[in-house]
Amino acid sequence: MFKVGDRIELEVEVTGEMVRKFAEVSGDFNPIHLDEEYAKTTRFGRCIAHGMLSAALISRVLAQRLGPGGIYMSQSLKFMNPIFIGEKVRVEIEVRTLREGKGIGVVETNVVKTNGDVCVKGEAMIMAAKSV
Amino acid sequence: MFKVGDRIELEVEVTGEMVRKFAEVSGDFNPIHLDEEYAKTTRFGRCIAHGMLSAALISRVLAQRLGPGGIYMSQSLKFMNPIFIGEKVRVEIEVRTLREGKGIGVVETNVVKTNGDVCVKGEAMIMAAKSV
Amino acid sequence: MFKVGDRIELEVEVTGEMVRKFAEVSGDFNPIHLDEEYAKTTRFGRCIAHGMLSAALISRVLAQRLGPGGIYMSQSLKFMNPIFIGEKVRVEIEVRTLREGKGIGVVETNVVKTNGDVCVKGEAMIMAAKSV
Amino acid sequence: MFKVGDRIELEVEVTGEMVRKFAEVSGDFNPIHLDEEYAKTTRFGRCIAHGMLSAALISRVLAQRLGPGGIYMSQSLKFMNPIFIGEKVRVEIEVRTLREGKGIGVVETNVVKTNGDVCVKGEAMIMAAKSV
Repeated sequence: MFKVGDRIELEVEVTGEMVRKFAEVSGDFNPIHLDEEYAKTTRFGRCIAHGMLSAALISRVLAQRLGPGGIYMSQSLKFMNPIFIGEKVRVEIEVRTLREGKGIGVVETNVVKTNGDVCVKGEAMIMAAKSV
Repeated sequence: MFKVGDRIELEVEVTGEMVRKFAEVSGDFNPIHLDEEYAKTTRFGRCIAHGMLSAALISRVLAQRLGPGGIYMSQSLKFMNPIFIGEKVRVEIEVRTLREGKGIGVVETNVVKTNGDVCVKGEAMIMAAKSV
Repeated sequence: MFKVGDRIELEVEVTGEMVRKFAEVSGDFNPIHLDEEYAKTTRFGRCIAHGMLSAALISRVLAQRLGPGGIYMSQSLKFMNPIFIGEKVRVEIEVRTLREGKGIGVVETNVVKTNGDVCVKGEAMIMAAKSV
Repeated sequence: MFKVGDRIELEVEVTGEMVRKFAEVSGDFNPIHLDEEYAKTTRFGRCIAHGMLSAALISRVLAQRLGPGGIYMSQSLKFMNPIFIGEKVRVEIEVRTLREGKGIGVVETNVVKTNGDVCVKGEAMIMAAKSV
């Protein structure tokens, strides 16, 4: 079902509306994410997206690829650089290795800016449908 | 700033509205999360929240505790059991160990149902403010 | 096969001979591990064990518990405090949560000094025998 | 100190002597690692190295690269395929991303057979010397 080298890329613009909705879902209304005036007084200078918003984007691409019977077992996330509101990012998913005969795979899951800066780097462990 | 044993718990009801907003943020409109009729035909029998919605709740509690200067370095997530829409979960955050003199800590980050079932289990690595 | 709360503890003295053998296996002959005179000139003041030696102890306890058909899928390790040669440590393994119906579990895997300091903290993901 | 793309490769033959020494260090004397007659009766057909021996090789390459002041913060390991005794493996270390201004980096750490099969896949988080 999966092959080493399988790859999906998705380009997404992280909008202020996405960030407001993420604030409502998570309950994290820190002004660094929502208040441009406040953000100007911080070291970032502008509003940044919640770090975990990147994880939401990763999970969308991965869930779609896994399909109904696949299992999303685990995800690791390393937060490397913030995403400013209005920036475009690319979610990059690539199957890196499979465990023989079990349908278990390791997928690299990165969120990268158009200038190459990595926002979130991580790995997922998945199990393909019908393998259990 | 952090001590081993520091602990925060937050109880949250995962509502249909949160799930719809998470679908809009992530772009994951899988009917298992949104369409009760469809969900009845699956092994779950009911709509379930996106697994990564738990991560949003974890990040809210952790970000609040870290404060403006703290750094959320990494998060691991193991997806163990689904959350049905309307269920209450408890986000449990506990500082488990600190690296001497560096402000680096490992925090256990779990999302647990009221019946004790673990939905998501994981660990975060954090760095306290002013340690860098 | 596994139940939440299953727990194994093992006390081990980390000897100079273990550290020398680990140096030979790994090829890591850094004098901080092997040369007491050199170690005195460092911030540690004494020889310390290779951090990854703790992982060897964790894997021993886990492999024994898993038995021949179980699968050791993954391990995360956070290195928190060094072990000085001659120190006693306790390897603590505890099943923290299971995924219903799949035999997949998350095990907390810590190596702790007798004074309570954590040397290595981490989690393993396992699959019980016959579950696949 | 580190740049994205920095890369080290090391080829190692995993010998029976390394495996015996790893057994002595870890205390894991499972005959699947040590007794060729026993191993013939298993699904592997031959003696295999302890999975965690790969971690020892990774830590050697990483520790050497980090130097005395660098910090090896964490390591994740996904066990994908066994190494048979006598096989050659390549330890591949590559800096994949850095966090701006902090000296914190994420390193991909793989152990791969000469036929391309991945034995262990993982990531390390490191902090360069003098960054704290």
